Amino acid sequence: MKVLIVGGVAGGAGAATRLRRLDENAEIILFEKGPFISYANCGLPYYIGGTIQSRENLLVTKPELLRKRFCVDVRTESEVTAIDRAAKTVTVVTPEKTYTESYDKLILSPGASPKKPNWPGVDSKGIFTIRNVPDTCAVDDYIRETCAKKAVVVGGGFIGVEMAENLTDRGLTVTLIEYLPQVLPPFDPEMAAILHKTIRAHGVNLRLGTAVTGFEPNGSGLRVLCKDAEAEEADLVILCIGVTPDSGLAAAAGLELGLGGSIAVNDLFQTSDPDIYAVGDAIQVRSRLTGADTLLPLAGPANRQGRAVAESIVGRTPSHTRDVQGSSILKVFELTAASTGLNEKQLKAAGIPFLKTYVHPASHASYYPGGKQMTLKLLFAPDGKVLGAQCAGEDGVDKRIDVIAAVIRLGGTVYDLEDMELCYAPPYSSAKDPVNMAGFTAANILRGDMKVFYCEDLANLNPETDFLLDARTPMEFAQGSIPGAVNIPLDELRNRLDEIPAGKTVYEFCQVGLRGHIASRILMQHGFDVYNLSGGYKSYAQAKELYEKKTGVDCTGIPRK
Amino acid sequence: MKVLIVGGVAGGAGAATRLRRLDENAEIILFEKGPFISYANCGLPYYIGGTIQSRENLLVTKPELLRKRFCVDVRTESEVTAIDRAAKTVTVVTPEKTYTESYDKLILSPGASPKKPNWPGVDSKGIFTIRNVPDTCAVDDYIRETCAKKAVVVGGGFIGVEMAENLTDRGLTVTLIEYLPQVLPPFDPEMAAILHKTIRAHGVNLRLGTAVTGFEPNGSGLRVLCKDAEAEEADLVILCIGVTPDSGLAAAAGLELGLGGSIAVNDLFQTSDPDIYAVGDAIQVRSRLTGADTLLPLAGPANRQGRAVAESIVGRTPSHTRDVQGSSILKVFELTAASTGLNEKQLKAAGIPFLKTYVHPASHASYYPGGKQMTLKLLFAPDGKVLGAQCAGEDGVDKRIDVIAAVIRLGGTVYDLEDMELCYAPPYSSAKDPVNMAGFTAANILRGDMKVFYCEDLANLNPETDFLLDARTPMEFAQGSIPGAVNIPLDELRNRLDEIPAGKTVYEFCQVGLRGHIASRILMQHGFDVYNLSGGYKSYAQAKELYEKKTGVDCTGIPRK
Repeated sequence: MKVLIVGGVAGGAGAATRLRRLDENAEIILFEKGPFISYANCGLPYYIGGTIQSRENLLVTKPELLRKRFCVDVRTESEVTAIDRAAKTVTVVTPEKTYTESYDKLILSPGASPKKPNWPGVDSKGIFTIRNVPDTCAVDDYIRETCAKKAVVVGGGFIGVEMAENLTDRGLTVTLIEYLPQVLPPFDPEMAAILHKTIRAHGVNLRLGTAVTGFEPNGSGLRVLCKDAEAEEADLVILCIGVTPDSGLAAAAGLELGLGGSIAVNDLFQTSDPDIYAVGDAIQVRSRLTGADTLLPLAGPANRQGRAVAESIVGRTPSHTRDVQGSSILKVFELTAASTGLNEKQLKAAGIPFLKTYVHPASHASYYPGGKQMTLKLLFAPDGKVLGAQCAGEDGVDKRIDVIAAVIRLGGTVYDLEDMELCYAPPYSSAKDPVNMAGFTAANILRGDMKVFYCEDLANLNPETDFLLDARTPMEFAQGSIPGAVNIPLDELRNRLDEIPAGKTVYEFCQVGLRGHIASRILMQHGFDVYNLSGGYKSYAQAKELYEKKTGVDCTGIPRK
Repeated sequence: MKVLIVGGVAGGAGAATRLRRLDENAEIILFEKGPFISYANCGLPYYIGGTIQSRENLLVTKPELLRKRFCVDVRTESEVTAIDRAAKTVTVVTPEKTYTESYDKLILSPGASPKKPNWPGVDSKGIFTIRNVPDTCAVDDYIRETCAKKAVVVGGGFIGVEMAENLTDRGLTVTLIEYLPQVLPPFDPEMAAILHKTIRAHGVNLRLGTAVTGFEPNGSGLRVLCKDAEAEEADLVILCIGVTPDSGLAAAAGLELGLGGSIAVNDLFQTSDPDIYAVGDAIQVRSRLTGADTLLPLAGPANRQGRAVAESIVGRTPSHTRDVQGSSILKVFELTAASTGLNEKQLKAAGIPFLKTYVHPASHASYYPGGKQMTLKLLFAPDGKVLGAQCAGEDGVDKRIDVIAAVIRLGGTVYDLEDMELCYAPPYSSAKDPVNMAGFTAANILRGDMKVFYCEDLANLNPETDFLLDARTPMEFAQGSIPGAVNIPLDELRNRLDEIPAGKTVYEFCQVGLRGHIASRILMQHGFDVYNLSGGYKSYAQAKELYEKKTGVDCTGIPRK
């Protein structure tokens, strides 16, 4: 069996090595149009920032290793430019020659290219996209050679935010311009708001809701033009406005395409031509939770797909399908932000009924030094099934989202989270882990032990019928509360019930939701109709601007219905 | 409803607050024989070591809070000395008086006491056990007042190891004496061996397999006498030889007892008297994996049981049963050691068929600085169901065991681990997370893609019929290999197949198992009967002494069958 592989990074290199392990006799040729294979794609921003210091470190696997250890015929600087499906051959172009190569099976792992819009001036000197090692080195060289001081990053997705952080770490002044009102679409707006604060706290000029329209030369630098807004000066511009599946070769060969020009595959990773397979950032995957086709250009799935396509080609049932759950994480300066499953925007778009809860637990026991408070948002179905989670904080965030990712993968519920037996010692967690806490609050909601409301509901409160109660201490109240709230501290509540106007619905809150839950239980059992603010005042304070903007009032009173 | 609670730490305090949240009208009285409730039990060793600096920090919840916020009548320094089940009353003894108190429901949360053996001299000055804040302060005061320089810790369980570390951190010279040949029974011997090295590397004189027989005064200090071994000098001795359920009150009341004198309860946490409940370290729990009764005196289960018993008392189905999985973790100097589910010793004892795999992955992408190698042992059933895991390393250990704990909780398999979609960015993980790696290797074994052998099998190899092959580089081989092994580097293997004696079974290894897997695949497909050493030479080197000791030979050749 002769197998050709187009593309030598995550999916392609993984397919080559797994295929060799499964079939010692296959002839395997790997074509890579660039000079390097299997490089540290996800490490590129950190090379710019200096955390990864050597270019050598970015090259994970050398062609020589694939040749010697795996008997893979690695051909770098070899671009596959056409597929002749009838003849089962491909055309290969190298700096020296053009030739054809035949195949029994062909695996496409072309990846995805950074989008480059046709804005005026987009081809000016000093404007870069980042996809591979040469791109990264070009930026590094440019900063070094021009002594660039001021960078504009266009686009606030993963790469954009990582680039903004790394350029800041390198000492540049950075403006990050994002078209949408938030960075990082996997996060819901109120979670992204936490990240916005951190990004700004590190001196990044974060301009949200701003559309770049073009570039003009400006002395030795550039002027970044924005729609209906001030232009931004820059020595250097990095475009990080997303990626497009590199499906040109597949499209030209008449293979079926999917969403956004991706390559459509089945669960065996076969394209519409059963002898041609595809994996990695270029393919159309499917949400494990909604069943809908989607795109998820991430290294983890690409690596697993590389393994799976090799299994598929040797006739096995692949150990991975094209189903994805969508787990992602990134470092945002001292913060970690991670998510898994579906977010609120996706759930609404898919019409899936859900509930949600916010908790702000410490990463480990409060009496052991070094614990950090995190914000964890959990989304779940009315039957308790966990649908998604998002978390931001300085410590222990990756652990909690990975645990919830495992629970989602196995169809677990909030009752499982409540009863989950995780490792506890003071340096690592609390006897009630943040995952348990999320489960407790979610289960309290589902069992009817606590009715909750959310910050966005504040806009719909009506002072005629609703009573907004701050159950924190007078000192906390004095330092800032939700406008319109009346302070009755939890520990005085039982003695001051008569201060709550009869007949009104009580909307109460504390700092993070725990005292609020206790207040709710007291008030419910005394006959009040009461809602506790999920996540408490902390959730409100984290994204106050958002609720102000949304309601169109300045939060100078309980917003009107 | 009048509910009395005996014991005010994890289980008791948790029961009181949950019960109040569920029933605003219940009369709740909490008796605690000591001066403090709800203290930071698991933090006590870290107060001795100085990581937790203030005694105040050890007191998590003050009685005043329970009184004001939860209307719980907290009575400290009040020991419940008898239960009159017929009259439904208890006898309470305080420094001032003795009285009876009636109950509708009684919850026992007495905890467990440190074992104090009847060895000669055990009551000498300078010998301590650690259970609560006063015990801990006594040790702290004693070190301060006597300027103690040399400590002996007797017993290498969780508290013993934590005490050894913390006394070392405080500047004392520490000897840790353990009766068994290993510390920390939740870990199998070869995993404990990793911890032994770290404990010794920090200057702790670790004496395994040594029985303490008594104590003798020796000037201002003590002499710790050992059976058939040298005595140890000490200024201070901490006894950490385990705990005994504090079931005296329950036993005297004629309640049914379980394993080791624990209090027997059903899944509603009722004792044999349906109006008397029990939770926490004193009760008999049940293994979720074997169904057998067991003891698990840990803070996590105790806290959940406290919640559950309150639910049970108000007539709900409790959100937690007495089933436990056994997840535990501890810091051992710079190492973290964690485990979940069953270990190999327990699986063998229960007669449960299992397989196992060892991997040594990095905590995050190798090209991003700061990653640390961990050792992860996974135990699984022939049908793939995950049964247990143990892990040791300097970074990311807690995360991987918690993820596997979630998978065990939900009945997941190694195929789920293989396909698990966890968060990946270079600072946090690799595209193939350690959990995935454990799943890959386990699934390779189950699918028959790789036969494995283990270090303990080395003792059974026979040079007449078996060929021991080191597939690492000549440089690695020169730095140390398994005695009797022949070096054929992986990258030369295909060209040197004729050096493997025909007809012999090949037992091969590399450094961590990955190259060995590739070597196995090559050799299998060339017709050899081949086994790969799970965990590779690293696993061998980690516990070499163990295999030497086990075989009774000095590893100067392939041990004989």
